[in-house]
Amino acid sequence: MVRLLPKETKFFDLFEEMSSNLILGATAITDLLRDFQDTAGYVKKIKDIEHRGDEITHTILIKLNSTFITPFDREDIHTLASSLDDVLDFINAAADRIILYKINAAPAAAYEIAQIIVKQSESLARAVRNLEKLKDVLPHCVEVNRLENEADRISREAIGKLFDTEKDPIALIKIKELLEVLETATDKAEDAANVLETVVLKSA
Amino acid sequence: MVRLLPKETKFFDLFEEMSSNLILGATAITDLLRDFQDTAGYVKKIKDIEHRGDEITHTILIKLNSTFITPFDREDIHTLASSLDDVLDFINAAADRIILYKINAAPAAAYEIAQIIVKQSESLARAVRNLEKLKDVLPHCVEVNRLENEADRISREAIGKLFDTEKDPIALIKIKELLEVLETATDKAEDAANVLETVVLKSA
Amino acid sequence: MVRLLPKETKFFDLFEEMSSNLILGATAITDLLRDFQDTAGYVKKIKDIEHRGDEITHTILIKLNSTFITPFDREDIHTLASSLDDVLDFINAAADRIILYKINAAPAAAYEIAQIIVKQSESLARAVRNLEKLKDVLPHCVEVNRLENEADRISREAIGKLFDTEKDPIALIKIKELLEVLETATDKAEDAANVLETVVLKSA
Repeated sequence: MVRLLPKETKFFDLFEEMSSNLILGATAITDLLRDFQDTAGYVKKIKDIEHRGDEITHTILIKLNSTFITPFDREDIHTLASSLDDVLDFINAAADRIILYKINAAPAAAYEIAQIIVKQSESLARAVRNLEKLKDVLPHCVEVNRLENEADRISREAIGKLFDTEKDPIALIKIKELLEVLETATDKAEDAANVLETVVLKSA
Repeated sequence: MVRLLPKETKFFDLFEEMSSNLILGATAITDLLRDFQDTAGYVKKIKDIEHRGDEITHTILIKLNSTFITPFDREDIHTLASSLDDVLDFINAAADRIILYKINAAPAAAYEIAQIIVKQSESLARAVRNLEKLKDVLPHCVEVNRLENEADRISREAIGKLFDTEKDPIALIKIKELLEVLETATDKAEDAANVLETVVLKSA
Repeated sequence: MVRLLPKETKFFDLFEEMSSNLILGATAITDLLRDFQDTAGYVKKIKDIEHRGDEITHTILIKLNSTFITPFDREDIHTLASSLDDVLDFINAAADRIILYKINAAPAAAYEIAQIIVKQSESLARAVRNLEKLKDVLPHCVEVNRLENEADRISREAIGKLFDTEKDPIALIKIKELLEVLETATDKAEDAANVLETVVLKSA
């Protein structure tokens, strides 16, 4: 009888696809910020990745509305999809600012934070991959949180330095916003890790 | 027996009132931004409309707490009320900035985004009106999302242009914030459309 | 039988501890802003208080995941903990800005808003203390909302004045952000009051 109402395991595959796509986006913004070569090419690439992310998120939410028995709490599925999507949105927002503000150089901190987003995405991908078995998820969540603290410290130091050295207010506004948008991406990764932690703790 | 616990249809009337009120607010900020004549008069009008919006939202939330059987998911009623209220809050925030920053002219983009908020409000009103019958809701939600993309494009182009042409950093800060606040109103309208879409999909 | 599954009253103690801790944080930022003496000392103190707040929040969320019968709706416990934590986060963000932007003086408005956060925290503590008996909670929530309106007015006037008088754009950016961060703390206190109101109304 139970087999007539199987748990919908496809959610796990979709979350794995989502976190793989996130790694692609984080890697692209890192490559862009490394040396600002082919900015337009990377921005186009990030836009496509973000678009793909929107599609996967939409598929998850549609499936959520049409699925009776979900593998973990509906609300947590919704929040996890939204927060993974948010990370990519802020990566895309950073790419946007680079085009919009014609930024062609940035403090090393911007590149370093982007590298941290890659590491967070990799940890999230590992956590998501282990979610179905509910084993070896928490250590990756802890790592995502540790990385967020590191990004926060780097961003704060860079903004402090910016106020010390950048005398052109308009240039300051541009770079400050770029750093803040990148740092917000690491906050959203932390949100995703917190949902994953909640899912594991609830099932304990 | 069922008739002793009737579904509370009054929620639909309140949402219709809310979206009608939203159209008034969106129209007032558009009229203000058209030519900045009688700014004080329009700001006062928007403040009153926003106050009325708060009252309707409050009525919906009170009713939600005292109603046993709701016409659609409690959580969705709450989110729909909040996001419709948010649109009006950001319209009011735009009016606020105009007074606070003594803005007496703005790029055409500000007026164009305000016109888009009017169109979104009209689409939301149509979707809300059809919500009870669950028919002809989705096309209006799609339209609200399309309009958000349009506002996003207009806002981005205008901010890019602002960074190219506005050499006074303080003037730049003012206009950039006005455009961002208006664009955020269109995001909140999209949030409202997404809840409406969810309600329809769940009932399918 | 019922006594085998007792309601988890410990949540109330944790919320009382959280609101007491919040009063400490609000008092520290007020003392800092009064005269900017020993800024480093107060910032360190606020950081410790914020850290303690994170621990209490974490304890509440862990307990929430492991508790079967909660004294009020799970979702409301979660939102109340988050919003009380947010107030402290924004107090900490204000302290951060002071260090990061090397702010050593601020308009009287900053100090006045900090005083309002103290009063809101005291009202929240009273509301939380009365929550279990569900008596004499609402008046304190109303007071928190009234105080938010007052902070909003003070902040708006101060920012308007700042645009009138501060001709250094970088100094303007710093003080504007400090005032906005402090004002956001009062918004978060209002969010906490709204949850408390909801809890009382649902139980009516």
